[in-house]
Amino acid sequence: MASESGKLWGGRFVGAVDPIMEKFNASIAYDRQLWEVDVQGSKAYSRGLEKAGLLTKAEMAQILQGLDKVAEEWAQGTFKLNPNDEDIHTANERRLKELIGETAGKLHTGRSRNDQVVTDLRLWMRRTCSTLSALLWELIRTMVDRAEAERDVLFPGYTHLQRAQPIRWSHWILSHAVALTRDSERLLEVQKRINVLPLGSGAIAGNPLGVDRELLRAELNFGAITLNSMDATSERDFVAEFLFWASLCMTHLSRMAEDLILYGTKEFGFVQLSDAYSTGSSLMPQKKNPDSLELIRSKAGRVFGRCAGLLMTLKGLPSTYNKDLQEDKEAVFEVSDTMSAVLQVATGVISTLQIHRENMAQALSPDMLATDLAYYLVRKGMPFRQAHEASGKAVFMAETKGVALNQLSLQELQTISPLFSGDVSRVWDYGHSVEQYGALGGTARSSVDWQIGQVRALLRAQQA
Amino acid sequence: MASESGKLWGGRFVGAVDPIMEKFNASIAYDRQLWEVDVQGSKAYSRGLEKAGLLTKAEMAQILQGLDKVAEEWAQGTFKLNPNDEDIHTANERRLKELIGETAGKLHTGRSRNDQVVTDLRLWMRRTCSTLSALLWELIRTMVDRAEAERDVLFPGYTHLQRAQPIRWSHWILSHAVALTRDSERLLEVQKRINVLPLGSGAIAGNPLGVDRELLRAELNFGAITLNSMDATSERDFVAEFLFWASLCMTHLSRMAEDLILYGTKEFGFVQLSDAYSTGSSLMPQKKNPDSLELIRSKAGRVFGRCAGLLMTLKGLPSTYNKDLQEDKEAVFEVSDTMSAVLQVATGVISTLQIHRENMAQALSPDMLATDLAYYLVRKGMPFRQAHEASGKAVFMAETKGVALNQLSLQELQTISPLFSGDVSRVWDYGHSVEQYGALGGTARSSVDWQIGQVRALLRAQQA
Amino acid sequence: MASESGKLWGGRFVGAVDPIMEKFNASIAYDRQLWEVDVQGSKAYSRGLEKAGLLTKAEMAQILQGLDKVAEEWAQGTFKLNPNDEDIHTANERRLKELIGETAGKLHTGRSRNDQVVTDLRLWMRRTCSTLSALLWELIRTMVDRAEAERDVLFPGYTHLQRAQPIRWSHWILSHAVALTRDSERLLEVQKRINVLPLGSGAIAGNPLGVDRELLRAELNFGAITLNSMDATSERDFVAEFLFWASLCMTHLSRMAEDLILYGTKEFGFVQLSDAYSTGSSLMPQKKNPDSLELIRSKAGRVFGRCAGLLMTLKGLPSTYNKDLQEDKEAVFEVSDTMSAVLQVATGVISTLQIHRENMAQALSPDMLATDLAYYLVRKGMPFRQAHEASGKAVFMAETKGVALNQLSLQELQTISPLFSGDVSRVWDYGHSVEQYGALGGTARSSVDWQIGQVRALLRAQQA
Amino acid sequence: MASESGKLWGGRFVGAVDPIMEKFNASIAYDRQLWEVDVQGSKAYSRGLEKAGLLTKAEMAQILQGLDKVAEEWAQGTFKLNPNDEDIHTANERRLKELIGETAGKLHTGRSRNDQVVTDLRLWMRRTCSTLSALLWELIRTMVDRAEAERDVLFPGYTHLQRAQPIRWSHWILSHAVALTRDSERLLEVQKRINVLPLGSGAIAGNPLGVDRELLRAELNFGAITLNSMDATSERDFVAEFLFWASLCMTHLSRMAEDLILYGTKEFGFVQLSDAYSTGSSLMPQKKNPDSLELIRSKAGRVFGRCAGLLMTLKGLPSTYNKDLQEDKEAVFEVSDTMSAVLQVATGVISTLQIHRENMAQALSPDMLATDLAYYLVRKGMPFRQAHEASGKAVFMAETKGVALNQLSLQELQTISPLFSGDVSRVWDYGHSVEQYGALGGTARSSVDWQIGQVRALLRAQQA
Repeated sequence: MASESGKLWGGRFVGAVDPIMEKFNASIAYDRQLWEVDVQGSKAYSRGLEKAGLLTKAEMAQILQGLDKVAEEWAQGTFKLNPNDEDIHTANERRLKELIGETAGKLHTGRSRNDQVVTDLRLWMRRTCSTLSALLWELIRTMVDRAEAERDVLFPGYTHLQRAQPIRWSHWILSHAVALTRDSERLLEVQKRINVLPLGSGAIAGNPLGVDRELLRAELNFGAITLNSMDATSERDFVAEFLFWASLCMTHLSRMAEDLILYGTKEFGFVQLSDAYSTGSSLMPQKKNPDSLELIRSKAGRVFGRCAGLLMTLKGLPSTYNKDLQEDKEAVFEVSDTMSAVLQVATGVISTLQIHRENMAQALSPDMLATDLAYYLVRKGMPFRQAHEASGKAVFMAETKGVALNQLSLQELQTISPLFSGDVSRVWDYGHSVEQYGALGGTARSSVDWQIGQVRALLRAQQA
Repeated sequence: MASESGKLWGGRFVGAVDPIMEKFNASIAYDRQLWEVDVQGSKAYSRGLEKAGLLTKAEMAQILQGLDKVAEEWAQGTFKLNPNDEDIHTANERRLKELIGETAGKLHTGRSRNDQVVTDLRLWMRRTCSTLSALLWELIRTMVDRAEAERDVLFPGYTHLQRAQPIRWSHWILSHAVALTRDSERLLEVQKRINVLPLGSGAIAGNPLGVDRELLRAELNFGAITLNSMDATSERDFVAEFLFWASLCMTHLSRMAEDLILYGTKEFGFVQLSDAYSTGSSLMPQKKNPDSLELIRSKAGRVFGRCAGLLMTLKGLPSTYNKDLQEDKEAVFEVSDTMSAVLQVATGVISTLQIHRENMAQALSPDMLATDLAYYLVRKGMPFRQAHEASGKAVFMAETKGVALNQLSLQELQTISPLFSGDVSRVWDYGHSVEQYGALGGTARSSVDWQIGQVRALLRAQQA
Repeated sequence: MASESGKLWGGRFVGAVDPIMEKFNASIAYDRQLWEVDVQGSKAYSRGLEKAGLLTKAEMAQILQGLDKVAEEWAQGTFKLNPNDEDIHTANERRLKELIGETAGKLHTGRSRNDQVVTDLRLWMRRTCSTLSALLWELIRTMVDRAEAERDVLFPGYTHLQRAQPIRWSHWILSHAVALTRDSERLLEVQKRINVLPLGSGAIAGNPLGVDRELLRAELNFGAITLNSMDATSERDFVAEFLFWASLCMTHLSRMAEDLILYGTKEFGFVQLSDAYSTGSSLMPQKKNPDSLELIRSKAGRVFGRCAGLLMTLKGLPSTYNKDLQEDKEAVFEVSDTMSAVLQVATGVISTLQIHRENMAQALSPDMLATDLAYYLVRKGMPFRQAHEASGKAVFMAETKGVALNQLSLQELQTISPLFSGDVSRVWDYGHSVEQYGALGGTARSSVDWQIGQVRALLRAQQA
Repeated sequence: MASESGKLWGGRFVGAVDPIMEKFNASIAYDRQLWEVDVQGSKAYSRGLEKAGLLTKAEMAQILQGLDKVAEEWAQGTFKLNPNDEDIHTANERRLKELIGETAGKLHTGRSRNDQVVTDLRLWMRRTCSTLSALLWELIRTMVDRAEAERDVLFPGYTHLQRAQPIRWSHWILSHAVALTRDSERLLEVQKRINVLPLGSGAIAGNPLGVDRELLRAELNFGAITLNSMDATSERDFVAEFLFWASLCMTHLSRMAEDLILYGTKEFGFVQLSDAYSTGSSLMPQKKNPDSLELIRSKAGRVFGRCAGLLMTLKGLPSTYNKDLQEDKEAVFEVSDTMSAVLQVATGVISTLQIHRENMAQALSPDMLATDLAYYLVRKGMPFRQAHEASGKAVFMAETKGVALNQLSLQELQTISPLFSGDVSRVWDYGHSVEQYGALGGTARSSVDWQIGQVRALLRAQQA
């Protein structure tokens, strides 16, 4: 019933080939990034074939040499794509055949693009994750160095964006650095699961030609081999995990960026971004905008969007390989690029940020010591709930009288509780206040030093 | 305290300029797609400036001519980007100045990139949405044409993927076409909200130089002007709506793709994809895979991911313009491209799909008429709940005897209910069955015809 | 091969009934909220059955009376659920049968739970959306009233959270009110698509018994009937649209909340939340936290999560009804409750918020007039780009000298441009500044009045 | 300026207390689930206070006894909530005070609800994750047991839902079991990060009263203490990780459910769900629907929605505690309940599923051996690419002749390649086919046995 064109009803013209479908289907536009790992995987596979007796030593040598030539062309930018090169695997094998002839046709023996592509992607991600780990460590190290250098700067700690208690500036820096150490730990776990070899799984049923997967594993330096060929060719857990790792890390960085944007406003005035990380306005001559931080904050959305997209693609998918899985690579490439830029820009921001110590100092106010006032009473034996109430009364009294909390006279305080005596004056010293918080994890200098030591030890352990 | 390089602590080298930050900040790599609408907006704005007395007629003419030249260079591929062209607005104005000199410096009077970029994006999306509308209509029209041509083909309707009742193949086609008409309706609503002009809002406070925004609106053929300058420069509702429109449309297409993938399995065997929309296996010679449909299904994830990403970026953002908003464009561009390809590939798939009528017919089985058997009893006066139970007994009896439901003898049926009589044989006719469903929206021929008429009328109304 | 328990291998004990499965499958715990609309739908359907000759008038009367009794029991809290009442439809029909006997068994004739449940949900959402519309209008009206009353209060407008230009406080209020009018417009569109009747679609194939769907539509006051029975029973566009509507609306409210949280900090000091919408700290006596606003901000995540969840559930689902669709109701119920609370709390916050006019006034600084200084030069004929540069030089000169921008002497300014003359002093008046922004949508008083008029007109039109 | 009611403009009536705000703010409706861990945490904290000299031994004893009484009331269902009990912490401390008087007021010394709630949540999740781990292991074990028992059943393996190669049914089971072992491994990692104690972090600055956090850790049996008080009270990584863990696990289960739904259709006919996990139709007497599997598939959306919601809530949040974080608990509770039900239902489904061996066998067809035919030629020395092409020619020849692939005569095959000889007949044996796939991870019996051993060893290691 169909016409020659294959067109039955309506629709635009459709011949034997629909060019929009060709483009829709092809992945070469982005998977060409895998050229190097594709060659690497093929070289290992040809060694496996030789061991299994499917290639002679001479054939193997010919293939290895040919693959090196392919890689060289890519590296030098002389590799020429053909219109039929729908993906990097096709392109490389096509070129290999041009270079070495029919022997090239033996390379794919027992292999499928299903196990090939996921091997390539794991190799690529393994390298990328190492790079990202190093960038993340650099950021954390920069933060810890800065925390150590500026340990004696005090400024307000906020909860609910309301001034809460005096803290060390370094305590704030470390609060973000500590969060990043968890990202660093998680990345190591993701790397462990990336580092598992699927090659030798074929399209679905496995490899029927006696290829030794342990040998392939050793050749490619993987930590383990996948257990089940159906799962190996269709699971993308390691991609989903990587995207989620990035999403959570970006959430941390978005919160740090938000803090710094706030601290950099005229109103807070605690920090000033280096010009290298700010931009001006096309309309308002006086403006200097924290574009770097805003972009970091915004990228949390983009990165998470990729994670959400992949999970939705995976949901309810019939098992084994389906073309739907082709969506994995662009997500990985984009998120890797984003993370690399974000981590480097964040390191630049932190390492060049100026702080305004005087503004920080001036922002401390006696009402932030109301909790300490309560603790003063607790130390004199009053149950905390009563002390909290008494301190609240003092706050109210000061507000009513229009004076600062530390300007209430001893007599006035004693109308609230007879436990107040002359030594209450020591409460009003911000330096004294922070030093109280000496329990591990608190804002006292000893605890900040402990934190610095802990984070440094973690970094050393992770890098080992 | 800072060294010359601006570097205070740790971190990689940072000079006056961080090249990674430059690249991180720049949008020219993708917003160059806006070149044409950027020129269009600037031309209208220069007319507004002339009317407001801020440009002489001669200056306006000079600017208009210069902008035309800029556009020509883009169109011909001769426009050369400078390293400092961080975005399309900067690039175009820089080039204009090179072409016409200092007068170019008057073009940005009272304008900010904040209102400029969102005007550009609306112009771009207005055009794109028209294209997508047309592609969507083409797909729907193809489906309706096919539904009309194959009205007499019956096959099983499924619920819970279990065979439920006989239906017309056209009823299935129309079920998806009707869903797409809602997408088409929604797109018109999104287009209405895109078609609102923000130009003349400046950076935040509005335009102080008497530019007539109604004139700008008329020049650029917008439907209305934005009401509030702060909102106008920072709201991205129209982007979020567009991304959600695409997400919901893709959800529909993912469900249609899922159906067709199933119907194209060996096991169902109802349809066969044209070769133009299938691909082979690198390992298994006998395979023909429905890659086009799998890709359509998978893109639902990608598109939704972009929607999720943008909403997360917008969440909790302080009002007015923040650099975070720069994330809008790549999402729009990618989703537009995806939708364009998906709609065209879907049209191609539907218009070239072969159906296997004999397999469809053979898949109908008497147990699918169990509901009709119950209705038979209902028509004889039995309450439905009892009839449902009686029919269930017949199903069980047939299963127990190992015969088809229609092979139970009248005597056997009468042991279940005395209401059964000779005319029960008419129940076992699939053609008769579907014709019962004559209420509007049902699977009877008259209702299918009515649906075709309704969808055609909707399309005509939407295109008006 | 199976043991009596049906258990083949491993696993926990499984008898004929798995209580965890029973609970997993049942929806009565939440769909009981549909009791009233379920009765309403059944009453209309029994009228349809009578017209179609499937019920006598007496049977119909009996059913209607029985259903009224069922409703009465729910309303009075005396309805007793049975363990087998897996959903509200089963519960109501079971009870009807207890009340009126076998005639109850005729009610479900030609109906399926597939068309029944979606009819119920549409009825429920139609009512809920009306309520939410009214709450949204009340919020917008409150904002507009406040904007009108406080039109003469000026304060800093921010972009990138950096002080940008002086604006009217009302202009800020209206920027959020205008965003909400789009939500209001969108909700009307969603309501239009909710208001379409699926009843009469049966399980999949339609209604075979001559039920007049137009009559059902009129009985239940729907705007239209669904076009295709397969689509009607399985599409949840109206749910997805509602959830997205709520997500986008929450994004707006999260941004308003963020602004108000910032404006309420000690550092900004522009607003003070009413005690009714703040809470204290269990530890710090001096704290008053903007919990209401933080909760509003956070709910944007929850609401969007429901939207994301539903779309993922829908992705790739085979067509027609699948049990997966049962996920729709809890999402709708939770989001409806959240929106109702959020809109009311937001209205309460806005209507009781105190503003600190003196802090607002003090936060205005001459550098925020740098753009106006440029415009001053533009008005004297200088191209904007040069004027922008000249104003930038003045800002730099003032910074270098450590004085405010308006403290530069005329002579000093004239070293930058000879166009400066005595009238430059008028630039330094904030009231004069805002009045310049008289183009529609700007922050001049006339434009603010125009905005108020526009929003009020929109509300009137929407409520019509 | 405000009226007595605090209402300034418009809006609904607002008095000193807005009941909607009270409800909006309160968490007791759901955080009451924390009653037991809240008591547990408080008991440990009172021991810490005693050691620090802030409680006498007698006071501690009084508090411990009181807390036990509180717990007893909850356990017995006699705990009575007061209207002012906004959360579980308030409720428990209020009740403690009623029971033991003013000493109760000492319990909260140096503690904040900020560190208290996150300690409670970690304790709760630690217990829940242990339960979920056990349920997941049970599911995996059931699958492995079944895989072992049905090792000799062959059926078609599918890629792209097209028949690909013969595989063992156990290989399919194991493909899903292996995926679940990764979930199990990830859950252990999440548990490790949950198992870190934040108590002693106060509201933000730490603990100023010498409480020994190592002692608290030991009391509550945590693996470590948090490093930074600001981070400890406001990070919710462990929640996000848990929600993502559940999302990825659900993605796996949704894919297994999809497979089983397909395999349970009339068309595939490979499996039959136990009645305990199926339901009937209210309209169609012959239907038996796989509701359990559809619900499992759908819950992937719900669970992921909670993950998406939380991440959006966290995005851009200023550091330290904000009320936004209150969104964490409902997400955790709902997802925990869902996972518990899903894992148990999945175990029930797998352990009671019937398989139809004859249908499985009949679904194998000679064209699925086309790859093996190519390998036959490879073994005879032909390069794979040529062999693949030759096998493709044989498939085409068989199709053209209208015979099965194995019905081509040797002569016919030899027209394609002279390498074909009599031993080609061995290719057509399905049992022989699967046995070829003996490389680790393949579908040969030895490899399936190896997989079973590997998964069992993993389970043993994880449970250790």
